[in-house]
This record gives sequence, structure tokens and C-alpha cells, in this order.
Amino acid sequence: MTTRHPSGGPRELVELTGHVLDTGLFTRVLDDVRALGADYEVVRFDVGKEHDDPSTVRIAVTAPDAATLDSVVMRLHTHGANLVEVEPARLTTVERDGVFPADFYATTNLPTQVRVAGTWHPVENPEMDCGIVVELEGELEGEGDAAVVRSVRTVPVSDVRAGSRIVSGAAGVRVTPPPREAGDDSGFTFMQSEVSSEKPQALVVRQIAEEMRAVKERGQRILWVLGPAVVHTGAAPSVAALVRGGWVDVLFGGNAIATHDVEQAIYGTSLGVDLSAGRGVEHGHEHHLRAINAVRQAGSLAAAVEQGVLTSGIMHALVEGGKDFVLVGSVRDDGPLPDVRTDVLDGQRAMRAQLHSPDKGEVGFCIVVATMLHGVATGNVLPSHIPLVCVDINPATVTKLADRGSAQARGVVTDVGLFCATLARELTGSET
Amino acid sequence: MTTRHPSGGPRELVELTGHVLDTGLFTRVLDDVRALGADYEVVRFDVGKEHDDPSTVRIAVTAPDAATLDSVVMRLHTHGANLVEVEPARLTTVERDGVFPADFYATTNLPTQVRVAGTWHPVENPEMDCGIVVELEGELEGEGDAAVVRSVRTVPVSDVRAGSRIVSGAAGVRVTPPPREAGDDSGFTFMQSEVSSEKPQALVVRQIAEEMRAVKERGQRILWVLGPAVVHTGAAPSVAALVRGGWVDVLFGGNAIATHDVEQAIYGTSLGVDLSAGRGVEHGHEHHLRAINAVRQAGSLAAAVEQGVLTSGIMHALVEGGKDFVLVGSVRDDGPLPDVRTDVLDGQRAMRAQLHSPDKGEVGFCIVVATMLHGVATGNVLPSHIPLVCVDINPATVTKLADRGSAQARGVVTDVGLFCATLARELTGSET
Amino acid sequence: MTTRHPSGGPRELVELTGHVLDTGLFTRVLDDVRALGADYEVVRFDVGKEHDDPSTVRIAVTAPDAATLDSVVMRLHTHGANLVEVEPARLTTVERDGVFPADFYATTNLPTQVRVAGTWHPVENPEMDCGIVVELEGELEGEGDAAVVRSVRTVPVSDVRAGSRIVSGAAGVRVTPPPREAGDDSGFTFMQSEVSSEKPQALVVRQIAEEMRAVKERGQRILWVLGPAVVHTGAAPSVAALVRGGWVDVLFGGNAIATHDVEQAIYGTSLGVDLSAGRGVEHGHEHHLRAINAVRQAGSLAAAVEQGVLTSGIMHALVEGGKDFVLVGSVRDDGPLPDVRTDVLDGQRAMRAQLHSPDKGEVGFCIVVATMLHGVATGNVLPSHIPLVCVDINPATVTKLADRGSAQARGVVTDVGLFCATLARELTGSET
Amino acid sequence: MTTRHPSGGPRELVELTGHVLDTGLFTRVLDDVRALGADYEVVRFDVGKEHDDPSTVRIAVTAPDAATLDSVVMRLHTHGANLVEVEPARLTTVERDGVFPADFYATTNLPTQVRVAGTWHPVENPEMDCGIVVELEGELEGEGDAAVVRSVRTVPVSDVRAGSRIVSGAAGVRVTPPPREAGDDSGFTFMQSEVSSEKPQALVVRQIAEEMRAVKERGQRILWVLGPAVVHTGAAPSVAALVRGGWVDVLFGGNAIATHDVEQAIYGTSLGVDLSAGRGVEHGHEHHLRAINAVRQAGSLAAAVEQGVLTSGIMHALVEGGKDFVLVGSVRDDGPLPDVRTDVLDGQRAMRAQLHSPDKGEVGFCIVVATMLHGVATGNVLPSHIPLVCVDINPATVTKLADRGSAQARGVVTDVGLFCATLARELTGSET
Repeated sequence: MTTRHPSGGPRELVELTGHVLDTGLFTRVLDDVRALGADYEVVRFDVGKEHDDPSTVRIAVTAPDAATLDSVVMRLHTHGANLVEVEPARLTTVERDGVFPADFYATTNLPTQVRVAGTWHPVENPEMDCGIVVELEGELEGEGDAAVVRSVRTVPVSDVRAGSRIVSGAAGVRVTPPPREAGDDSGFTFMQSEVSSEKPQALVVRQIAEEMRAVKERGQRILWVLGPAVVHTGAAPSVAALVRGGWVDVLFGGNAIATHDVEQAIYGTSLGVDLSAGRGVEHGHEHHLRAINAVRQAGSLAAAVEQGVLTSGIMHALVEGGKDFVLVGSVRDDGPLPDVRTDVLDGQRAMRAQLHSPDKGEVGFCIVVATMLHGVATGNVLPSHIPLVCVDINPATVTKLADRGSAQARGVVTDVGLFCATLARELTGSET
Repeated sequence: MTTRHPSGGPRELVELTGHVLDTGLFTRVLDDVRALGADYEVVRFDVGKEHDDPSTVRIAVTAPDAATLDSVVMRLHTHGANLVEVEPARLTTVERDGVFPADFYATTNLPTQVRVAGTWHPVENPEMDCGIVVELEGELEGEGDAAVVRSVRTVPVSDVRAGSRIVSGAAGVRVTPPPREAGDDSGFTFMQSEVSSEKPQALVVRQIAEEMRAVKERGQRILWVLGPAVVHTGAAPSVAALVRGGWVDVLFGGNAIATHDVEQAIYGTSLGVDLSAGRGVEHGHEHHLRAINAVRQAGSLAAAVEQGVLTSGIMHALVEGGKDFVLVGSVRDDGPLPDVRTDVLDGQRAMRAQLHSPDKGEVGFCIVVATMLHGVATGNVLPSHIPLVCVDINPATVTKLADRGSAQARGVVTDVGLFCATLARELTGSET
Repeated sequence: MTTRHPSGGPRELVELTGHVLDTGLFTRVLDDVRALGADYEVVRFDVGKEHDDPSTVRIAVTAPDAATLDSVVMRLHTHGANLVEVEPARLTTVERDGVFPADFYATTNLPTQVRVAGTWHPVENPEMDCGIVVELEGELEGEGDAAVVRSVRTVPVSDVRAGSRIVSGAAGVRVTPPPREAGDDSGFTFMQSEVSSEKPQALVVRQIAEEMRAVKERGQRILWVLGPAVVHTGAAPSVAALVRGGWVDVLFGGNAIATHDVEQAIYGTSLGVDLSAGRGVEHGHEHHLRAINAVRQAGSLAAAVEQGVLTSGIMHALVEGGKDFVLVGSVRDDGPLPDVRTDVLDGQRAMRAQLHSPDKGEVGFCIVVATMLHGVATGNVLPSHIPLVCVDINPATVTKLADRGSAQARGVVTDVGLFCATLARELTGSET
Repeated sequence: MTTRHPSGGPRELVELTGHVLDTGLFTRVLDDVRALGADYEVVRFDVGKEHDDPSTVRIAVTAPDAATLDSVVMRLHTHGANLVEVEPARLTTVERDGVFPADFYATTNLPTQVRVAGTWHPVENPEMDCGIVVELEGELEGEGDAAVVRSVRTVPVSDVRAGSRIVSGAAGVRVTPPPREAGDDSGFTFMQSEVSSEKPQALVVRQIAEEMRAVKERGQRILWVLGPAVVHTGAAPSVAALVRGGWVDVLFGGNAIATHDVEQAIYGTSLGVDLSAGRGVEHGHEHHLRAINAVRQAGSLAAAVEQGVLTSGIMHALVEGGKDFVLVGSVRDDGPLPDVRTDVLDGQRAMRAQLHSPDKGEVGFCIVVATMLHGVATGNVLPSHIPLVCVDINPATVTKLADRGSAQARGVVTDVGLFCATLARELTGSET
């Protein structure tokens, strides 16, 4: 065997099992090996005969140096490929708050296990682009020693503390392959094909409605992530009907969606556009400022509802229904509303708490409508097993969200207003 | 008074009456004068006191030379401004087929009158970017002479014949100002504001439906111009329902809309996309070829319906309902279908015949869905008094159509599939 | 005279002077009056005869109630129209931190004056969507009394403190009309026409370069607002050359632009794309995480430069040149870099400090490249007299920025990479 | 072995050789089998060990009926997969002009061979979406008989004549796999990754320039396909410089590109936009009409050059350099220019003649700039071995062209004006 990196270069065996061929997974694995400057040899290839049979492939990856090899293995983790050899994870102690060891293992959002003290421990809260903190009782002395593993969790770099033990390198980490992306026969999979506005969207709406019904039947929560265009396109009554119908358990968004919702509830306008007449006043900014000021005067959105200042709209329905919402500010905000978290790290923590708090119940479905900023932010903290649908009239937004590494993301390029109205009619029967 | 073009430069008085201020018309007039290198002086300004009062303004335009001045006056015609001085039109005889005299009057799409033999004659078929042919009985000898004016018509350059008399220069031509674009209180005017996807589209659909009902009540015809995305987005059943409901009197389009409609009727796919499952086969081109071949075998779309080859879809509904359609080919066509006119000038003539044949009845409304090519082509031949609505998910398409000089164009940026489904539900009650 | 709001309704005289007609200003004024539910009568109209002569118009606005009338007058302020009658500003004392009085005057970004104690006081830091705080020495007892006005400043609602005196209603406030938007003969004005990708962009680059040279000759600062696509499109070396050439005085941006710039400097990739080979590794996220971690390890961008960790790129050039930069975080950030402000209100304050600190020198030009979030945020705090150019390949971004009320915004729809390279060649002669 | 289509269903062995894995080809093959309602079993899989080794896979396809099976085999031809069993092609005689036999073989644009009389005959002019005509001397009586094959050519359905022999079904047809799409180490392949505006475009320009130099060194021709935005963006002087430099051998386009080029040459405007001042006159339509009329008066573009009417621009440079151009009309044309073919089928034939006439020399590279209509039309007639680059500022245009089945298409999302200027500087040194 000759490789580009002759015997001197380090080499690892990596294995991938599943629907390796008809999902294009194997192609992406080989592309990534080459793109990172490594090379491969296919060592074993057990191909599934029929389309439902899983395949197993094993490749030997050779790289010019150990760091590159580590990079390749971490990258292949995003495709669900794992090292064949079982080794213990290597732990490094953090020296300074907010700084990882240089060779920290960068997480994927796949279900992940870490081998410590002779056992594979599942990572409690899979999230991409984090490190993995292993909390021990006592000290590790060797594979299989007496140390007790208290927890294995992801931690973002901003939250890591000196003294924590962080997984270094890719050894001792394995992931579960991502859900099958193509060739699946379930109804929901039609959305696998390319992002396009040339799709039968009425059908798409029906399939999303079915998926939401299934999620609620499983007792899971539905997470909505909304941008202000939801209000501008006249969809607020539809979304409010969905809230009242029990189809919205938690909302993520920014100052704008809540502000324009409140503005519309109080003044009947959204960014100055009179929605019932469809007649625009482009720079009617003053209304949204007064809406913000009114809620600040009340003290909070809940207080505004209680005091009768806010009597309709999405936020009103959420407050009335006792639903959760996390509003995180951005640098372009006016105001903001008193409920908006102005520190973005604080905001990210609040979003994570909604996803990972045992008492909240599990989120089973996430739908992002008309927001790239909050959609990407949500995609960042979402484990890979929660389906994510992104709806926007701009194909670029839909593509961008999917590109950021959220393999489970599906895009729908359509009109946000008509989409919400059609979905609300489908799920609640309401004509808004 | 000093002007940039001192006494030597030619000068004309131009007058503009109507809602000159609150429509921005006057601003555009002044901009155009300056942009073409001429200058102006406001000679008279009778401003309407209240917002419903018309204003009258009169400006003196001075230009460096007569050709520029002629250009300016023709340009101002597009805004409905006319020369104050009444002069006879100057007629020049065409020397060669298909070539206008160098100084031909280039038409707008506004109602236009030409002064010949002491009388103002309306142009029978206003269309932009044409010349005006005056057919006389006998010879003109002077203002008010015995010559009889047989007809005054627009003619495209390709159709002009040697010996015809064409209007030269802007003298003796006057236009009716365009319909008021803003400040109008009728429901339909909301669509005047800027093209945007951030509009309450459910409301827009309702207003278009109302407009269509009014058009039918006036006994006028509705013209639809469709692109193939209508089929790709699953809207064909909705449009077919609209045809059956009597809301489509005539269709303009290309080979693609008809081909993919037939493909879907025969194979259940559109460009290879299985629309009932939403599952795409991107390069399923072969189906559309076989669909074309099947209709060629039958001889025509009507024959295919008669022979039972074509049993559903938009084209089927049009044939069954005895509606008109004009399909014009383009260089990217496969096939094409036997009903497609492959000569584009022949196609333009067929479109004009639908708009101007007395026995067809008047077209009172035009809606363009998901096609820039045929939308612009239709805008080119449409008189200014026929309202034109352009629906597309791509804002650039909507903007481009409006920019090409169709002042009456209104844009709706929305999902084509959901738009047609919602409109069909509104007008026909059908759930497709 | 009859109006819709008979004698009972309140009425104010408003005057507008300047290039009222050929800029469309008057049309917008009348549209806004009507859109807000008020009515008008044109009381006086002195039209400029030639295109360089200013016009003066005076209208009487009648509204159903005083609040609407106040709204209309504030709206007309955005067009530079002022009340004819001179009254003192009405001041209301703030009762609670972070809450304006209900009828606070909402600012425009135009130069503004407030009438207190018989004198017009200029607002020190014009910014839209704020309130106006008047700081007094002693108490006001009447027009012309002995109170001394210490300062008149805008204040965002989040920063207002109990006890401050805020201007209520529109009386006693006047604004300077916005700069002429059309018909101007200076080279820069070509950019007034509609946003379009169909423009001769080489010419646009040359005109922006000329404008930048003029700004530097006046001794003013140039503010750049950058998004990460600047790095993805390979423009970082061009921008770094512009920094070194003295064409970038201060940078606004987020975590992403700085992170990808550092990632490219350290790893040669941007979001995993190897820029020298143009070969993409879509999910090469790990590199940017390690880049962030390396700067966190160093302590700051400046420390990373000092320690030799960061040796090229935009941020390196800024640090080396001692230039200012304000990085403000967003909820989608990884990391972030230690220099990023994670509280968005804190970030806004830092941006304002760059615009209004006397010792920094005046910002004379602002260019926004490839970022909507930070572009809108900058537009929010920018006074109207600072020219703002927005460059993006996506027309929607350019349009949105202009729509948010930044009348001085000009859009360029073009390729960001080629734009920066061409501008750098023009200004610095460097080929990057 | 159990399959979904038990023993009753027809079955064929299909083989695919090449870079089957790392190009995603095999995934697409399996997807297509399933999407068309057939099933597969992997019969043999010889995987290339290293990334440069070819793989060979053989699958058994089972379908519910023979027609479906034929469809699947034709579809797999687009991926370069061939039937294992060697059978003679089945020929059917055409009964009516312009109609194929119902089961005609629908071509791909890959190099194709047809087995007639015991021999594989290459198809002379591969083109997708056509039929294959086999011209024989005498009659075929059996495999290996005395009939002489005179020619094997593609023919579009509109051009087929009664009596011709057309290949029916997929038997006896084999194709050469498409060129390797990924993993290739040549510089040009970077363009394989997804369409994106976030690419280092300066690098892209350089690589296209290199490719063009290589093409000219091989003595091949370069085909340009241009839309009118080339003129609107000020790129005409750059393209004219490229023509004069010998980098443009043949031009495809419509009436608009030539008209606006001539308009600019004569009036200095393009669609009324004064390009040297960048100052727009939106509806300056009259200029383009007069430009068309002037050329009609001259008789042709060549005559206009000869008579001194046309003295600059792209068309002038083509005429002066004796280069070929094919202008094909569309239904939205004004005029058109006398050189424009108004029959679209006639236009397609003229385009084919440029690609397949032996005396013209071979086209080795095709670049499409700013036109979807003519880009798709060109893609339709282009054999797969000619590289095709599509440049547009709108990602949708670029994506659409690639989607239409032109596997060799590469997209560049960038500013057309700056792109052409940069390419011209790179290739000709000219600063335009």
C-alpha cells in the first residue's frame, strides 16, 4: 500500500455504519478527508444489497501530522464516523476561566459518548461547537480505576471554568450517526430535496401539520423561533391562534418580533404599516417606540397583559397560556422591551435552559419562521435529533441556516403570511 | 429670466393637470427634463387646495436643440404632460418596409390623440414603443382640408410598410394623464406602495379577488399570464378550478407552462417532480419530452383533449371551456407543443389580437404569475388603462416588470402555490 | 372651505422650504398626512421658478384629535417640515428610570433645535428614535426666564433617568430639512436612483473613492461597518490594505467578522473555506473555534498581536495602526472573542461614543459592507448629515437599510470581494 | 433474494465505473432508481482503495413493468451507468414529421454510442432531450448484417422526418460517464462546490482566465452567451476589449444585448441610463427604439458598421473581427434588429451549427453572463464535455442553469460589471 503520507505519517482506522451510500454520507466523508489534507484507503466495504440494508465501511486515514489527523477524526464525527480502536478519552485541566486547552475536542450536535474510566458515558446535552467537561469524583489514575464520573456535559467556551477537566483530542469520543437523510419512506422526508421555491407548498404545510400532531401525541414540546416579518406579513393572528390551540410551547425571538406584535396589538400597525388596510406608512417608527415605552411603563409583558395594556397578539396569547418565551436582544434594538435579555451570553443560557431542563419536558420539533439571526442561534444550541424546519421567503436565509451545520434542518421557501394562515387553518380550523 | 439654454435654444410650453403633487408626478416630470439635458421654468402653478382637488402646472422647457426638445416632450408624454400649443401632427412617408422615419414619434401606452386635418383623432390601440400610422383617404393639403382620416393606429416597427404615413416628432400628439397612482381611496390602491414580501398577503388576495369580481360584473375579460412555476408549485389544480369557475378568459404563456401542465396531467410529475408526494427527481426531463411528443402525435392540445390523451390540468380546462390561449415559443424550448407559435413576431401579433379584437370583448384585468419573459412581453403590448398585477416569489421579477414602463403594474411578492390556492378558495370555494 | 375634520378638530400650520418639488418631498409630506388619518389644505405655495430655486409651501393640517395632530407633526419633522407658530417646548419630568413620559417627542436623525427659555437650542447629538433631555440650571418659570439651559441631548429610552426633563409633544421643536436628494449636480448624487444590480459598478467604486478622498481632506474620519462575508469573499487583504493606507478610522462589527478574519490569519481558512485554493470545507467550524480560543488565551486582539499570535488581516492592521473598533455580540455568536461586548446596550453606547466624542474627531463618511445587523444598528445611531453607503450582493439588505429611515443611505448591489479589491486598487494602488 | 417486484417484474443489470463514491454519483443512481418506483440489489461492488482508484459497481434493477425499467435505464444513462448486457439497438420508423415513436430513446448530453449491425457507433452530435436517428444504407436484417450505417445523430423532435429510423428503448445505447466532478486536483475544480456569493471571486476570475488561455492554446473556440445586463452594468467596453483580444470567438444572445450595446454606442445610454454619468432615466425607452431603427435602416449590424453608423461596442468589435454571432429573438423584443432570428427553432438550428460544424473549429469553453434564457438555451444544445461557466449576480439564475441537467455547469455569483472588468484586465491588460 502506498499513500501520500508514507509510513511516517500517523494513521487511524475509522468506521461508518448505516445508510452510507444512498445518503451521500460516504461521499462527504471522503471529500472531507481530502479537503483537510489527509488521505484514505478503503480497508473494508460491506455494502447493503438492497436499499434498506445498512452498509459498513472502514477506511484508514493517514495524515501528515497528529494534529491534522485529530482534525480529520473530529470532522468525520460530524458524519457519524467513529474510530475503530477504543481508547480512553484524554482529559486536560482548564487553566483559566473562559479558555479551553489548545487541543480541546470540538463537539458536534450528535448524540455523543465519552470513554472515561473504562465506560462510555453519554454527553448529557449535545451541542455543537462546545467542549466536553467531565466531572469526576476523585482522581483518575488509569483505565478502569475507582474514579466516579459525576457528569459529562458540553460547555461553551465562555462558560468554562479553571480547574474543569476538558476532553482533548478525538480519542475516547464516539458519536451516533445522524438520522438517515434520504431514501426514507416516511412522509416527512420529502423535505430532503434542495431548497426551492418551486415546491408544492400546500402539501408541505400539510406534512408539517402532521409532524406537529405526532410531536404533541408523543407529549413533546414545539419550539417556535420567530422574526418580525411574521407580524409585518399579517401572520400574528394565525400564530396567536396556534398558541391558543396549544401548538406553541415555547418561543425564541428578539426584541423586534415582540415589539411589532405589541405595536400591532396597541396601534393596529406594524412598523407603521396599517395591517387591516394594507396601506403603508414606511417610517411610522414612532408607534413601535411608544409601544415599547408602554410596556416598560407596565414593567413587563406579563404586567402589560395584567394591566389591560396588551389585549391581543402573539405575546398576549403566550402570557395568557402560561407559555415560555426567551427574547434576546441585538445591537439594532430600540428600547428594548423589559423582557428582552440584553446580554447575549445570558440569552444563550436561557435558550439552553429551555432545551435541557428536565422539568420543562422535551422539545420534539423546532420551527423557525422569518429570522436568520435567531434561527442560526437556535440551530447552534439544538441537538441533532430535534427536527428543525426553516420557513422564509428568501432562499438565502433557508440555505444559510442549513449550511451552518444543522444537518436536521429542512427548508421551506414560501410566503410567511400565507404559510402561517394555512397552517393555522389546518391545525386549528381558524380562519384568520 | 436666465436659463441655461439662452434665447437661442428652442422652447416649448408643457402643461400637466391632475393629482400632480400627491402622486409624485411633477417630481418625475422635472427629473426627466433635467436628465435629458434640458431645463425648465415653472410658468404657472395652480395647486389644489385639498387633497381631492386637481392641480395644474405649466412649465417652459428649453433645450439645446430641437431634437432634445422633441425627446423631452415625448418623455413627458409618458407622465401625461402635453404641449400647450395646438399644432397639426407632422406626417412622414415610410420609405422601406420595417423602417420608421428617423424622427418618428415613439408611443406611450397611454390613451393618445393625434391632430390631423384640424381634428384630434384617438389612437385605436395604444401600445408603447411603437410608431403611429395615419391612414388617409386622399392627400392632406393643409390644416382642416378635405382629406378623410380612415384610421390612426400604433404599429410596431417590424410591421410598418413602405408608403405608410407615420407621425414624426411630438407636435400634434397629446395623451391622457395616467390613472392616479396614490392617495386614491379605493381598496385596490394599497398595492401602490413599494414591492415587498413583508405585506399582509391574505389581504392582498382578497383585494385581487374583489377586483376580479368587479371586472366580471363589468362584462370584461380577465387575462392570465403564467410561467411554469405555477405547475411546479402545485398550483395547477387551483388555476384549473379558476378556469372552470369562469375567472380565466384568456391565457398567455410559453411552451413550458403548457408542457409541464400536460406532463403533470399525464405523468403526475412536473419537470420530473412527483407533485403528489413532493418528492423530487430533478432531471426527470424525459417525462416532459414524452408529454410533448404525445400532444404532437395527437396534433394539438384540443385534439389531445378530444382523443382523451389530456384529461386534466389547466390546458384541459381551457380547451373544455372554449377559452383562448396564446402560447409563444422561446429559444430554450424543447419540442415544442404544436400549439406554440415559434415565430416571436407572429406570437406578438396573436397577443395583440386578443387585446384589440372588437369581437373578443375588452380585457379589464391582467394578472401575471411566475413569469418574467411573458410578463414583460404582455406589459409591452398592454394599454395603460388595463390594471396589471404581477405575482412572484422573487422580488426582482416583480420590480423588473414594473420598471419596464408599465405604470399600472402592481407587484405581489408571495408564494405562487399558496397564492393561487388562496385565490381559488376565495373565488370558487374549491379546496385544491 | 370644508375639511374632513370640521372646525372641532385641532389644526396646525406647517411649513416646508427647499427643493420641495423636484425631490418628491412634498408628495411624501402629503402622503403621510393622509396616511395618519389627518387632512390638509395648501395655504401657500411659492414655487421656485427654475430648478435651483427653493420653494416654500405652507399647509394647514387638521386632525380628529390632538394626539393624531402631534403624530403628524412629528412625522413631518422627518421630512424637514416645521410648525409655523413658535411655541416653547413642553418639558415633562421622568418618573421612572428607563421610561419616557407617554407623549414624549420621538426624535428624527436630522439637525434639531428645541425652544427653551425663549431661545432655540441645538440638540447636541441628533439620533432617531430617542427622546430629548433638557438639562436646566434651576427651574423654568416661564418663557424667557432666568433658567440656564445646560444641555439639550437625545437619550435612548433605556438610558433615561428619573428626574430628567424630557420634551413632550412636537411644539417647540424644529428640524433642518434633509439634504437635497435629487437634482443635485455633484458627482455623488447618481447613487440616488433605485437600488439595482444593473449599474455601472466600476464607476460607483470610483465615485466612492473620490468621496473618501474628500472626507480625508476635510480631516474627518471614515467609519466602516463590516460583516463576515468580507472575509469569506476574500476581501480581507483589500480591507487590511485600506486600513494601512489610512482609509479606515473606525470599524463597527460583530464577533463573526473579527473571528473569521483571525481564523483566516491563523489557519488560512474562513468558516472552513480555504481561501487561497477556493476549495470549500463547509462545516470546518472547528477552525473558527480554535481561533477564538487562541485569542481568549492571549487575552485580547491587541494582546494576540503583541504576542505574535495574530500577524495579518483586518484586525491586525487596525491594532497595529491604533485604530478604533467596536465589536458587539449577537445571540448567534460562538465564543465570543474577548474584545466583543456581549451586552447590546453597552455596545450601542460604545458606538455612540465613537460618533459623538469630541476628542475622536468627526465621522464624515460611513460605509457598510455585507452586514444587515450592524448596518441597521449603525443607521440607528447615525445623524442624518453623515453620508452612508451600503454595499451588499443582496438587494434586500441594501433596501432594508435604506428603508429604516436613513434618508442619507445609498445602496450598491455588487460583489463584495471585487468591490473591496477595486476600491483598494483605486485608493492604495495595492493589488490584493 | 427478495425484491419489491417479485420474479414477475422485469430486471436489468446495470454497471457504473469510475469515481463512483467520492463524487456522489452512486448515491444519485440509487436515489433515481427508487424515485422512479423501481428497486435495486447491489450485485457487485469493487471499491477503489485509494482516492484515485476507480470503483466498479453493478446493480440489478427490478421494476414493476418494462416501461418503468426503460425509464430507469435512460435516467441512469445521465449518470453514465450502462446496461451490462450487449444488445442491438431497436430502431422504429417515424410515421409523421415532427413526432417520435412513443418509446423513443431520450438522449443525454454525454458521449453516446449506439449498437447497430454488430458495432458501436458514436453519436455525432450529443445533445440532451433529443432522439437518435440512425441512417442506413439498405435494410437491417439482423445483428451483423450487411447494412451500412451512414450516420448516427441526435435530432430534436421538431426536426424529425417521416421515414427516419429512431432508436427505441434503452437497449443498444451506452454512454461515457460524465467527467469527474469532485476530488479532482486541477485548479478549475474548486468551482464544484455549492453556488454561493461568499466566495473569493478575484480568485475565481483568475482561474477562469487560466482556463481560457488553455482553451486557446488547444486551438479551440470560446463561446460567450450574454444578457443585456452586461451593457447596463457598464461591462460592454470590457467585453469589447476581450473580443478584440481574441477571447471571444462566437456570441449567443438575444435582441436585447445587441440593442442596448448599439444604443450605448450611438447614444451613450443603455435602457436610458447614461452610463458615463451613472445617472438613470428609467424609461428612456425611446433611445433603444431609435437605435434599432437606425440598424434596420442600415440593413444589418455589419452594414451599420460599414456605413459608420455603429463605431464602438461589443457588436462592432465582433463585426470588425469577423466573429460569429447568433441572435435569437424572444416574445418581449422590441424591433428587433435585422440580424435577430425571430423563429426560435431556426435560432436553435443556428446555435447547433456553431457547435457542430466541422469547419468552424471546436468550441472548448462556454461562458454565460447575465442571462437565464439564452444560458438555458445554450445548455440545452451543449455536449457534456464542453465546460460551462455561468456568471450572474442572482444566485437563482446560476442554480437554475445548473439544475437543468448541465452537469458540467459551474456557477459564479458575482457582480457582472466588476467581473468582466477584472477578467479583461487579467487577459488583455486593458483598463476599461
